[in-house]
Amino acid sequence: MIIKSLRRFKSFIGDLPPDHHFPLENLPFGVGKRIGAKGGVKCVSRIGDYAINLAELESQGFFKEILPQSTFSSKFLNKFMSQERTQWKKVREILQDLFDANNPKIRDNAELRNEVLIPIENFRQEMPAKIGDFTDFYSCKNHRDNCGKKYPLAIKPNYEWIPIAYHGRSSSVKLSGTPLRKPYGQVMHPGSDKPVYEQSQWLDFEVEMGYFIGGKTNKLGENIPIEKAADNIFGFVILNDWTARDIQLWEFTPLGPFNSKNMLTSISPWIVTLEALEPFKAPMDPQVPEPLDYLKDPHRFNYNVGLDVFFKKGGVKDSDFVKISSTNLAHLYWSVAQQVAHHTETGCNLKPGDLIGTGTLSGTTPDTVGSLLEMDCLGLKGIPYKEGSRAKFLSGGDSVKIVGQSKKGNLTIGFGECVGKVLRARTMKKE
Amino acid sequence: MIIKSLRRFKSFIGDLPPDHHFPLENLPFGVGKRIGAKGGVKCVSRIGDYAINLAELESQGFFKEILPQSTFSSKFLNKFMSQERTQWKKVREILQDLFDANNPKIRDNAELRNEVLIPIENFRQEMPAKIGDFTDFYSCKNHRDNCGKKYPLAIKPNYEWIPIAYHGRSSSVKLSGTPLRKPYGQVMHPGSDKPVYEQSQWLDFEVEMGYFIGGKTNKLGENIPIEKAADNIFGFVILNDWTARDIQLWEFTPLGPFNSKNMLTSISPWIVTLEALEPFKAPMDPQVPEPLDYLKDPHRFNYNVGLDVFFKKGGVKDSDFVKISSTNLAHLYWSVAQQVAHHTETGCNLKPGDLIGTGTLSGTTPDTVGSLLEMDCLGLKGIPYKEGSRAKFLSGGDSVKIVGQSKKGNLTIGFGECVGKVLRARTMKKE
Repeated sequence: MIIKSLRRFKSFIGDLPPDHHFPLENLPFGVGKRIGAKGGVKCVSRIGDYAINLAELESQGFFKEILPQSTFSSKFLNKFMSQERTQWKKVREILQDLFDANNPKIRDNAELRNEVLIPIENFRQEMPAKIGDFTDFYSCKNHRDNCGKKYPLAIKPNYEWIPIAYHGRSSSVKLSGTPLRKPYGQVMHPGSDKPVYEQSQWLDFEVEMGYFIGGKTNKLGENIPIEKAADNIFGFVILNDWTARDIQLWEFTPLGPFNSKNMLTSISPWIVTLEALEPFKAPMDPQVPEPLDYLKDPHRFNYNVGLDVFFKKGGVKDSDFVKISSTNLAHLYWSVAQQVAHHTETGCNLKPGDLIGTGTLSGTTPDTVGSLLEMDCLGLKGIPYKEGSRAKFLSGGDSVKIVGQSKKGNLTIGFGECVGKVLRARTMKKE
Repeated sequence: MIIKSLRRFKSFIGDLPPDHHFPLENLPFGVGKRIGAKGGVKCVSRIGDYAINLAELESQGFFKEILPQSTFSSKFLNKFMSQERTQWKKVREILQDLFDANNPKIRDNAELRNEVLIPIENFRQEMPAKIGDFTDFYSCKNHRDNCGKKYPLAIKPNYEWIPIAYHGRSSSVKLSGTPLRKPYGQVMHPGSDKPVYEQSQWLDFEVEMGYFIGGKTNKLGENIPIEKAADNIFGFVILNDWTARDIQLWEFTPLGPFNSKNMLTSISPWIVTLEALEPFKAPMDPQVPEPLDYLKDPHRFNYNVGLDVFFKKGGVKDSDFVKISSTNLAHLYWSVAQQVAHHTETGCNLKPGDLIGTGTLSGTTPDTVGSLLEMDCLGLKGIPYKEGSRAKFLSGGDSVKIVGQSKKGNLTIGFGECVGKVLRARTMKKE
């Protein structure tokens, strides 16, 4: 594989350290507004510690050859997502040119520069897209196998043939930083003959990546062939699929998880494009058994994206985030192109702005898995957070942070972080 | 129970036969436009064989005391749904007054009358709401038991404790009349060690009702207590949850049905309100075992809505719709209020415009069930459609029609119909 871009660009905003998440090679997309400014939220990109006001650049005519009117002066990226890769790439090229150290157009126009570059500390970020439907896959085999060590129900004979998925809840997909109210739910305790309604005792996270659908998508009744699937992937975010394991175990047969997951799904706010991830693209091992034709892809690809998981215990003096796991998008068994092809096999229509989760990403050891459940299944007796104390699942006050980045040589393409704090459960009138 | 309204109203549009679905006691809500007229689709109601142009009545000021501006001059009913029952009732009362035989306001104003009353043959109907999320329950115990006779996996010990549900696909919920492209999908044939990708051989329908969420809904992390759940139900439609059984059987473990259902869900276009259904409200039997507190409802209610299912064989000369089953909303084991309370138990936020399916509605005999699968499970050897020929599942060309209505004395409150034709599968390049 030829490495195309290792920190090729130099921007007039000044040098960024090599581990900065947002060099001019990244240019992720997001939505938000300058704090205190008039008007609503608009589409932005990012360079270094600045959000780039794309709506302003649009109003100055910089994209008028490429994009329909008011593509970026929208409160969601859906209109931009509904363009095609040609347009997405072109916008990227224009931005890389505009912010180049040698280009005076913005650099030497103080008024325009101030309008376009919003210091990140003055920027309030919002949901990047209006999500139509949210789908969550189960495409990392290690995750399945780890869970299966304690819960044989996780392992089914269809796994090697079908990229298994379920429909999720779109209304409760929220931006990183949104707290999770510790849920009450129905739980059946082992040995009991009657369930109870109580606070989840097995509250967990799931480290995933999500990707937004874009481009010209399929009509109802049509499918997206695997060789075209990548055309419909706009970009990636970090995704935390919070899960109440005790509620899940009791509710999930025969129709799948429901309330154990629909209380919150968190995503990181910057959508990193396939173009930015190109240097980290990696072929995938052949699958055994060989998949059916509609899932066969001679150019099966994935990306190398490292995901570090940090835990912070609530209510403990001097507690800080400690790293508890490092996993990677590369752990996928089914590629994202296979997921898209499978999702549409019976004719389900995808739409720009739909969000698809990859499934929990895990290695095979307790320090490389994407959930506390798996740490437990692999024999870890809880996360040590202070001398003599370990946390097996999440409690009120605890926080989880996932940091995602791709690194090679002096180039970092980062996703920022996806963080969330667990709030104490709501007060119950009767219990 | 006191029967409040048995055809109390007489409208100036003239007498309607007692079995007409849309007397002045119904007044369902929908969306559409006069064929050939300028402008986009708008919100409407219906009386007899006329759609009522609510946007026009709104622009004339008839709702200005009750509703925010432009509630009905919208292409979806979501804004109206986000009002509360007080407003929904008030609009109903205003319409019942305006169309009363003795009220000259519209009756004697030819211009206004022509603007407001759109003959149904000149009316093109569209989706009544922008659906945020679609959830499908499994709340009819007969359906479970019928399926369980042949597929024991359908019966799980959580059923009597949890109103089981799964998240569905909102992008493929479409209006009655939308054809279903016969799906290809992955199927594992009994005795085989490798699945195949082929046209579904077990294509089925599922007769359900759906209800739209409205009112002031819960915030993320909050629940809707059972005693308030009915406040968040705007009204009902007929729902056909088309299902490819062979695809379902192979894909549904461990995370539930996915591609077997996401290719199309059909709904009838007129949303019938709880106010219209009030005369058909019926208490429900006590549940054994008694549910947990959060699902306990001393006033557990349902509605008596008859659902007749008609089948028409494709490609057969002189074939017409034949009735194959009659079922009823009254077959629910878990009430819709229990469904709403359960849906929000862990804090999932519902939104006006969300659609919730009740689950397949079935009696216990082949002529009262809501799916072909159940007819088969109960021993019926296919539907006879002509001398010597029987259809076990649906083929290209076949149509299914569901007609819904509540009847008591001389009063009918109808839903119209939910119809769909199966188209031949798409042409495959390689197979």
